[in-house]
Amino acid sequence: MKALKTKTLNLKDIEITDEFWKGRIDLAKDIIIPYQWDALNDQIPDAAPSHAIKNFEIAAGLSDGEFKGMVFQDSDVAKWLEAASYSLIYHPDKELEQTIDEVIELIGKAQQDDGYLNTYFTVKEPEKRWADISHGHELYCAGHMIEAAVAYYNATGKKSLIDIVCRYVDYIMTIIGPEQGKIQTYPGHPEIELALVRLYEVTQEQRYFELSRYFVEERGNQPSVFLEEETLGLGHQDKWFGLDYHQAHQPLNEQTTAEGHAVRAVYLYAGIADIVKYTQNKKWKIQLEKLWENVTQKRMYITGGIGSQGHGERFTLDYDLPNNVAYAETCASIGLVFWAQRMLQIEAKNDYADVLEKALYNGVLSGMSLDGKKYFYVNPLEVAPELTDYRHDHVHVESERVGWFGCACCPPNVARLLTSLGNYIYTQKSDTIYHHLYIGNKTNFTINKQNIVLQQKTTYPATGEVRITCFTENEVQMTLKLRKPKWSNSPSLKVNGELQEVVIDNGGYITMERKWRDNDTICLTFDMTPKVISSHPKVRENVGKVAIQRGPIVYCLEEKDNGGQLHSICINPKLPITEENDLQILGFPALTGSGVREVNDNDTLYREYREPELKQIKWKAIPYSFWGNRGKGEMAVWLRKI
Amino acid sequence: MKALKTKTLNLKDIEITDEFWKGRIDLAKDIIIPYQWDALNDQIPDAAPSHAIKNFEIAAGLSDGEFKGMVFQDSDVAKWLEAASYSLIYHPDKELEQTIDEVIELIGKAQQDDGYLNTYFTVKEPEKRWADISHGHELYCAGHMIEAAVAYYNATGKKSLIDIVCRYVDYIMTIIGPEQGKIQTYPGHPEIELALVRLYEVTQEQRYFELSRYFVEERGNQPSVFLEEETLGLGHQDKWFGLDYHQAHQPLNEQTTAEGHAVRAVYLYAGIADIVKYTQNKKWKIQLEKLWENVTQKRMYITGGIGSQGHGERFTLDYDLPNNVAYAETCASIGLVFWAQRMLQIEAKNDYADVLEKALYNGVLSGMSLDGKKYFYVNPLEVAPELTDYRHDHVHVESERVGWFGCACCPPNVARLLTSLGNYIYTQKSDTIYHHLYIGNKTNFTINKQNIVLQQKTTYPATGEVRITCFTENEVQMTLKLRKPKWSNSPSLKVNGELQEVVIDNGGYITMERKWRDNDTICLTFDMTPKVISSHPKVRENVGKVAIQRGPIVYCLEEKDNGGQLHSICINPKLPITEENDLQILGFPALTGSGVREVNDNDTLYREYREPELKQIKWKAIPYSFWGNRGKGEMAVWLRKI
Repeated sequence: MKALKTKTLNLKDIEITDEFWKGRIDLAKDIIIPYQWDALNDQIPDAAPSHAIKNFEIAAGLSDGEFKGMVFQDSDVAKWLEAASYSLIYHPDKELEQTIDEVIELIGKAQQDDGYLNTYFTVKEPEKRWADISHGHELYCAGHMIEAAVAYYNATGKKSLIDIVCRYVDYIMTIIGPEQGKIQTYPGHPEIELALVRLYEVTQEQRYFELSRYFVEERGNQPSVFLEEETLGLGHQDKWFGLDYHQAHQPLNEQTTAEGHAVRAVYLYAGIADIVKYTQNKKWKIQLEKLWENVTQKRMYITGGIGSQGHGERFTLDYDLPNNVAYAETCASIGLVFWAQRMLQIEAKNDYADVLEKALYNGVLSGMSLDGKKYFYVNPLEVAPELTDYRHDHVHVESERVGWFGCACCPPNVARLLTSLGNYIYTQKSDTIYHHLYIGNKTNFTINKQNIVLQQKTTYPATGEVRITCFTENEVQMTLKLRKPKWSNSPSLKVNGELQEVVIDNGGYITMERKWRDNDTICLTFDMTPKVISSHPKVRENVGKVAIQRGPIVYCLEEKDNGGQLHSICINPKLPITEENDLQILGFPALTGSGVREVNDNDTLYREYREPELKQIKWKAIPYSFWGNRGKGEMAVWLRKI
Repeated sequence: MKALKTKTLNLKDIEITDEFWKGRIDLAKDIIIPYQWDALNDQIPDAAPSHAIKNFEIAAGLSDGEFKGMVFQDSDVAKWLEAASYSLIYHPDKELEQTIDEVIELIGKAQQDDGYLNTYFTVKEPEKRWADISHGHELYCAGHMIEAAVAYYNATGKKSLIDIVCRYVDYIMTIIGPEQGKIQTYPGHPEIELALVRLYEVTQEQRYFELSRYFVEERGNQPSVFLEEETLGLGHQDKWFGLDYHQAHQPLNEQTTAEGHAVRAVYLYAGIADIVKYTQNKKWKIQLEKLWENVTQKRMYITGGIGSQGHGERFTLDYDLPNNVAYAETCASIGLVFWAQRMLQIEAKNDYADVLEKALYNGVLSGMSLDGKKYFYVNPLEVAPELTDYRHDHVHVESERVGWFGCACCPPNVARLLTSLGNYIYTQKSDTIYHHLYIGNKTNFTINKQNIVLQQKTTYPATGEVRITCFTENEVQMTLKLRKPKWSNSPSLKVNGELQEVVIDNGGYITMERKWRDNDTICLTFDMTPKVISSHPKVRENVGKVAIQRGPIVYCLEEKDNGGQLHSICINPKLPITEENDLQILGFPALTGSGVREVNDNDTLYREYREPELKQIKWKAIPYSFWGNRGKGEMAVWLRKI
C-alpha cells in the first residue's frame, strides 16, 4: 500500500485559541461531558434513564437486570469515551482519566471469551448475534468503540481499549468476510468503515484496513444480503426503510446519488474516502466526487443540513428541500464534516472546506443551545411553533431545543466534534501546509525536520481579518496554501505589511511558496459584506425567496426581533444590509435591512386580488445557529423578496 | 313541535335538464351504480373484493364464511341502495328495482331477532355490540341504512326497508338513551343524526327526531363516554385521534371551531342544522353560524375542500391550508354540501349557497374523473407527481385518480349526491321560492294550491345567462328569490325582455314579488369575467400567490398545458384573462393569460442573488375539477404573482 501523502496533524500539536470556539469547546468539556456521564449512569433526575453503563455491568456479570435502551445504546458510551479522550488532550484531568480507565475495565469484563462485545446481544438476545446485521447495529457499535479506543490511545498512549477492540475485530473477522464459511455482509449503519481505518492508522495492522475495504466493496452487491435476513426489524416495511435506506440498493460502486438515511450515507462516504486516501483508487475517487456533487449541489440545505424527510431520516429527491419539515439531523451535518475532512485529505479543494465550514457553523452549531445545555436533533430552516407543535407531518421537528433525547446520538457527537476540532484546520503534504479553516490556533509543524509554529489570531468569521505569524528558529522553505472560500471574491493579502499578489491554485487555495522566517506575519482580509442568496429554481420551497449569508454564516429572522407571521415579510434584495455591531451575539453582528410587511386589512379568507397594502419595515437577522435561544417563536431562513 | 316553514321539494317534482349535470348524473346511473353493484358482489376482476353483500349473506345464515372488509362495510351497501333509489326516480328500471328488493330482503334476513342489524358485530364480534361506539361505526352504518330506506320509500313508496330500519332504531332505543339502565352515548362517526330526522320526516314518529336531538345534546359532555370504552381501536393513541377527532372534546354546544375528522364534523353540523330546522333553537343556530364562519372563513380550501391533514383526515388550525398535503376528502366536501343545504333550509343566505356551489363544482367534482370511472379520495390543490408519489408526508395523496378504494366511501357518496342533485336547487317557504343553484331544470311547485312550473334553461356557470320561464294556468302571486352570488357584482335582470331594478334582500337574494303569468320569462345575466383571487395573508402556503376563479369555478394550471415546474411561473394579476371558447371542456372555457417563467441559467444550488431572467409566457388554465384527465403531471391552483 502506498504511503499516505497527505497527513492530518496530531491533535496534540494544535492548540485552539479562538475565543468563539474555545467557548464552544469549553462547553463540551464543562457541560456536555460531565452531563452525559451522569446521563449514562442514570443520574439525570427528569431524563429517561440511559441504562448504558448498567448494560455493561450486566453484560460483565457485575449486576443483575435486563438490557434497556436502544439496540445501539453501547455507542453512547463509546462516543462519550471518545469525546472525553479528546478533552484530556487539552485539559489533563486525572479524575476523568481514572473514570475512563474504570469504564474501559468494565468494557473489558463485558467482552465475551470469544472477543464479542455488545451488551444488547450479550444480555438480551444472545441467540441473535449477527442475525440482524441490517438493523442490529453490532458493527456500528463496534465502530464507535474503535474510534474511542483510538482517541484514548492518542490522548494517553494507553492501549487498554485498543487491545479490547482488536480482540473484538479479530473475532469479527472469524465470522464476517469474503471467505467461504463466513457471512458475506456489511454494516446496516456504516461507521466501522472509517473506524477500522483509524485502527489501522494506530496499529499499522493491514487486516483492519482490508476489512474496511471489504465492507465498502461488498456493499450493495445484489441480491443484497439484507434481503435474506429474517429479523429485519423496521426493514422493508415501507419503501423509505428499504435497501436504499442502508445504501444497499445497488453495488456501492454504482451509486452516484445520495440515497437513504443521511447519517448512514455520509459516514459511509467518509469511509470510502478513507479507503481512497490510502489506495488512491481513481474509480472510487471519481464516484466520491459524483456523490459530493449530488449531495452539495442538489440535496443539501443552505445550512449544510442534509436529509429532507423525517420518515427514514433520509435523502429524498434532487431539489426537494422543504424548510419546515426538514430533517437535517445534527449528526448528519457532523457526518458531512467528517466526509469533507477526508475529501480534503484526498485533494485540497476549497469546495470541500467551504461545505465543511458551512455545516460546522450552521447545521452543526444549531444543534446545541448557546449555553450548551439543550439540543436539536432536527434542524429545520423554518419554524412556526403553532404548526410545528401541532401538525402530524411536523412531528419529527421540535420548535425548541430539548434537554436530552431517548435516542441520544447527537449531543455526544457534537461533543466529539468540538473536542477534536483541531483536526479540521490543516492538512500537510511534505512541505506544503493547507490551511482549511480560519480559527484562532497555535500549531506545531515539522517541515523538512525543522519545527515551525504557526500562530493564527482571528475572530473570523465574525470579522474578516486573519493574522498568521510564523515562529521558527531557522528560515524554512515551505508552501502555505490558504483557502479562498468561494463566497469571497478578492481577499487582500499582506506579508509583513506588504500587499501581495493573490495567486490561487486550481483547488481554490491562495498559494505562497517562499522561505519563511521567524515572525513573518501574513494578514489575510476577507470582505464580509452580507450577501443575498437565492437557490436553484427547482427548489420549490425557496422559489421567490432569498436568504442572507455573511461569510459562511447563514442568517435567519426570528419572531423575537421581527414579530410573527414571518411569511408576511419581504426583503428588498437591492438595498444594502447593515451590520449591527452593537447587537453582537458571541462576536457576530446582527444584520438589519429594509423590507416590507403585508398588512392585513380584512378577515375574508378569499377575496378578489388587489395590490396588498405594504408597510415599510426594517428587519433584523441573527446567525441561524443561534436561533431559538430567546424563547419560543417563529424562525425563517428563506424569506420572500420584493 | 312547530311546523317546518321551509320545505325542500320532492325529488320527483324536479327534472334536471342541464346538459352538464345530466352528463354527470348519467355517469352515476350508467357507470357508478352498476360498477359498484359489481364491486359489492366482488365481481371486479382487479379490485380488492368488497365482500359487502357476502357479509349480509353470512349474517343472514345463507352463506358460510367470515366477515371481511372494514367495520363499516355495511354502509357501502346502504349508500349504493340510496343512490340506486334516487336513480329510479328519473329512470324507472324494473330490473334495478328488483335487485334492490332482493337486497332489502337479504338485509331483512340479516336483521337479528331483537332488531339489531350490523354484519360486522353479528358475524365477527357478537360479544362486542355497543362496546366500541367511538370507532365501531354501528350507529354510522345504521344512519346510512336509514337514509337508504327513506330514499327507496320516496322513490317507490315501498316501506320494506323503512320497516327494517324502524325495527332497528326501536331496538337501539332500548339500548341507548338518556334513561337509567341505557348507555348514555353518541355516535363515534356522526351520520345517524341527520338520518333520524329524515326518518322522522317520512314516518312522523317524533321519537326518531328525539333520538337525534339526544345524540346532539349528549355529545361531548365531559368526561366523555368514549374515554370509558375499553376497545378504543385507534382512539387516543395520539392526539390526532383523540376526543376532538370525534367532536367529543367538549360539550357540543360549546364547540365553536371545527375540530377533528372533517367528514364527521360536517355530517354532525348537518345533523344539528336538521334539529334547528324543526326546533328553531336560537342557541344552536348561533352556534352553527359560528362553526360555519370558522370552517368557511378560516379552514376551507378555495375549492370547498376541508381537512388539511392526512393523519386523522382532519381539521387542523385556522389558516393552516397547505396545498400539496391537503386532505380535502371528496366525502368531506359532500358533507359540506349537506350542511350548507340544511343551513339554507334554516335561513336563505347566499353565503351558504355560494359555498355549496363552490364545493359542488370544485371539491366534489374533482373526486371523479370525466369518464366517471376513476376517483380521488383526497383532493390536493397542488401536485408534483415526483414528490406526491415519493414523499412520506404526501403518502395520503394520489397523483392520479384510481379505480376504486379499499375504503370505498367516496364513489357511492358522489353517486348519491349526483342522483339527488334536484334537492339542492330550491327551497320554498309558503309563496316564496328560493332559487339557490342555477342548473337547467323543470320543476313543479304548488303555490297557494295552484300548480306552477318553473323551467330554467342555462349553461351556467359555463356561461352567465339564466332563463327562467313560468308555466301556469292562472296568474300566481309568488315571490321569487334568486341567489346573487357574492362574487357577482351586478347581474342584469330582465323580465319579458324588460330591464328590472335588482332588489337584493339581506340574505343576498334578488327578490321579485309579483303576480306571475304563463310564459313570464326571467333573464338573469351574471358577469363571468374571470377574477384573480388572493387569500388571507395568514395562509402561509398562499402568500404571494393568486388563484383564478370564474364564477364559482376555480381554475388550475396543468403541466400538460404549461410545462412542468409550475412554481417557476408567475401570473400577472393586472393583465386581462381571456376565455378560450375554442378550448372548452364540457362547455367550460379554458382561460389564458400573461405571465412569466423564471429561466434557469445555471446549476448552482445556492448563488448570490441577482434578478432572475424571466421569459414572457402565456399560461392556460382549466377548471380545477377537470384536472388529471390527460395523464400524469403537475397541477397547481395557487400560483405566484409577478
